[in-house]
Amino acid sequence: MFKNKESKNFIPFNKPYFSGDEIKYIKDGISIGNISGNGKYTKLCQTFIENKYSFKKCLLTNSCTDALEMAAILLDIKPGDEVIMPSYTFVSTANPFILRGAIIVFCDSKKDHPSIDEDLIEGLITNNTKAIVSVHYAGFSCDMDKIMSISLKYDLYVVEDAAQAIDNYYVDSHNVLKPVGGIGHLSAFSFHESKNIIGGEGGMLVVNDERFIKRAEIIWEKGTDRAAFWRGEVDKYLWRDLGSSFLPSELVAAFLYSQLQNLDLIQNKRKIIWNNYYESLKVIGDKVKLPNVPTYSLNNAHMFFLICKDSDQCFKLNKFLKNKNIYSAFHYHSLHTSPYYLEKHDGRILINCDKYANSLIRLPIYYELNQNDQQKIIDSVICFFNENH
Amino acid sequence: MFKNKESKNFIPFNKPYFSGDEIKYIKDGISIGNISGNGKYTKLCQTFIENKYSFKKCLLTNSCTDALEMAAILLDIKPGDEVIMPSYTFVSTANPFILRGAIIVFCDSKKDHPSIDEDLIEGLITNNTKAIVSVHYAGFSCDMDKIMSISLKYDLYVVEDAAQAIDNYYVDSHNVLKPVGGIGHLSAFSFHESKNIIGGEGGMLVVNDERFIKRAEIIWEKGTDRAAFWRGEVDKYLWRDLGSSFLPSELVAAFLYSQLQNLDLIQNKRKIIWNNYYESLKVIGDKVKLPNVPTYSLNNAHMFFLICKDSDQCFKLNKFLKNKNIYSAFHYHSLHTSPYYLEKHDGRILINCDKYANSLIRLPIYYELNQNDQQKIIDSVICFFNENH
Repeated sequence: MFKNKESKNFIPFNKPYFSGDEIKYIKDGISIGNISGNGKYTKLCQTFIENKYSFKKCLLTNSCTDALEMAAILLDIKPGDEVIMPSYTFVSTANPFILRGAIIVFCDSKKDHPSIDEDLIEGLITNNTKAIVSVHYAGFSCDMDKIMSISLKYDLYVVEDAAQAIDNYYVDSHNVLKPVGGIGHLSAFSFHESKNIIGGEGGMLVVNDERFIKRAEIIWEKGTDRAAFWRGEVDKYLWRDLGSSFLPSELVAAFLYSQLQNLDLIQNKRKIIWNNYYESLKVIGDKVKLPNVPTYSLNNAHMFFLICKDSDQCFKLNKFLKNKNIYSAFHYHSLHTSPYYLEKHDGRILINCDKYANSLIRLPIYYELNQNDQQKIIDSVICFFNENH
Repeated sequence: MFKNKESKNFIPFNKPYFSGDEIKYIKDGISIGNISGNGKYTKLCQTFIENKYSFKKCLLTNSCTDALEMAAILLDIKPGDEVIMPSYTFVSTANPFILRGAIIVFCDSKKDHPSIDEDLIEGLITNNTKAIVSVHYAGFSCDMDKIMSISLKYDLYVVEDAAQAIDNYYVDSHNVLKPVGGIGHLSAFSFHESKNIIGGEGGMLVVNDERFIKRAEIIWEKGTDRAAFWRGEVDKYLWRDLGSSFLPSELVAAFLYSQLQNLDLIQNKRKIIWNNYYESLKVIGDKVKLPNVPTYSLNNAHMFFLICKDSDQCFKLNKFLKNKNIYSAFHYHSLHTSPYYLEKHDGRILINCDKYANSLIRLPIYYELNQNDQQKIIDSVICFFNENH
């Protein structure tokens, strides 16, 4: 698959950005003698993000999956509870709720955007519905006013799967900017190396509903009140609840902190690359669909994708680029038709989800993508659509 | 609590050992551009341990808790299943099974040793019993022949919680040495910074029963066959099962690999320290109980503990040592009487477990504990028992 990877002119699909200070912070963590969880750098990361986005409470986790597992435990998801989420998403949106016994009710994507079709959600609600998971695909915000008003009407919880959405904003109907991840009752972010801001692996739970803050910290610390113990609030820590070891190592937190220090730098560069793709590829806009930035969302430049006319064209473009040493990538298989869930799904056809599963292709976007390489990608894509198909 | 920690002569309870090569390996991981999971260092760690102990399959995880969660999923633990384990253990022995719906049946400790009393297990088995968790307290092996013969008789699974037991051996009835963690169907290790060999956080699942190997790898990779995909065994990876993001960052794996390279060095030093405690404190053996090394176990020098006559003496010793800038530590609260499980427990009194919860105290043991400091600890303990009580 990666036969040309050794080539000097190889353009990878993703290349993690390193700020240069990661090792300095990791060394500092080691010199303090603390490399397990909830140390200096965990606190620095959490405080940085809480301050920057006015989030009430942030807890670093080993992964976005971990953060969603914490959400499922916090919401007391029980066997038989139904959770509504898009089918066009990563398996980790669904697994944390299934682990608690939930039935996943998959919702289709919008016709003009891969994220959940908010207008279909209400029709999927039953007496067993407990929560809606809004996945901010490619970092673009879902229409959160719509989703929150449904949640209010039916007394449901909203969990934002903001894995790809760090540093993005929802634009509400009054044109007020709200940080993505700060709107639902709970939110989950990813710092996996494929994301804008990275810790290797790593994720974060954001608690927006204050009722969940105290319990979140206990679940995070293996079901104990150890965090309160370290703060001197209790004499000894005890087993008080369900929980797991959701805390990442300080090695991960120190790495992440270095990235957060460079957040604006990283984001600005990615936006330049994203906008360059968009402006340059407009010329083939009648032949392939470019990303549709929703009116209610800003753009955090996490991903640049094209929607081909079908699976065949998508595969051909991928191969065409690969022959030029450019690595593009497809994205999700529809979860509702995956081997694990096909028999459990209620049989509804999710036509838009399947369309994106078949025809969406992602182009390289990373901090170090230089102008020459990007121009090569742009020229190749234009060439493919103009000359070949 | 740690008011004297700043003092030059302060002797901490634990001090993580750093081999000096951790940063070199972490830098190498960064230079490869891979700091998420299942990369070069994850594979190096797994292969190292598989080869050293002839384990069939090792999978690094974010924590020992994670490894136990994988075990609970692999064993298809369902609501109502009963799992037998000691009450004198960390909450993470129990939570992973409770998360799958299990009822925990807590077993008492032995009169002469804090680990599970194997002779009590058979009396706790019902038609709902699914598994026994053998926790190798302080790294000392449980009597695995006894436990495995019970599991065979009643068709139960055995999970070894080997969190503290890296590099230790069980001595079977034929005097054959078997690596701890290589005997039960599944085993879980910890590389938390409080352990002999560390990755900051970090753990490992060991699969001894080959029937579980394929599924373990899928559960590890979020319920997908991505690991097989990377090996080129499948064309694309799909959602095939329950799972979570159990893979640690390569930052953690690189750190751990440096420690594994120094395993013998670390273990030899710890054993010298442990033996020095044991030989030097024999003189007060009529006043306080020293650790009883079971005949069927070697000693990996994870922990040196004393069993005082009661809680009061234990607190006094802790305070006495603290006044000399020496930090000792109590250990587990009985899980069956903890706030989370008291109402769920069946009411049996676990007299030995409660005894250890009240009267066991741990002395500092770490690679860099020098002879002078250890002598100060030894002299102080002898002084306490000879002069004060």
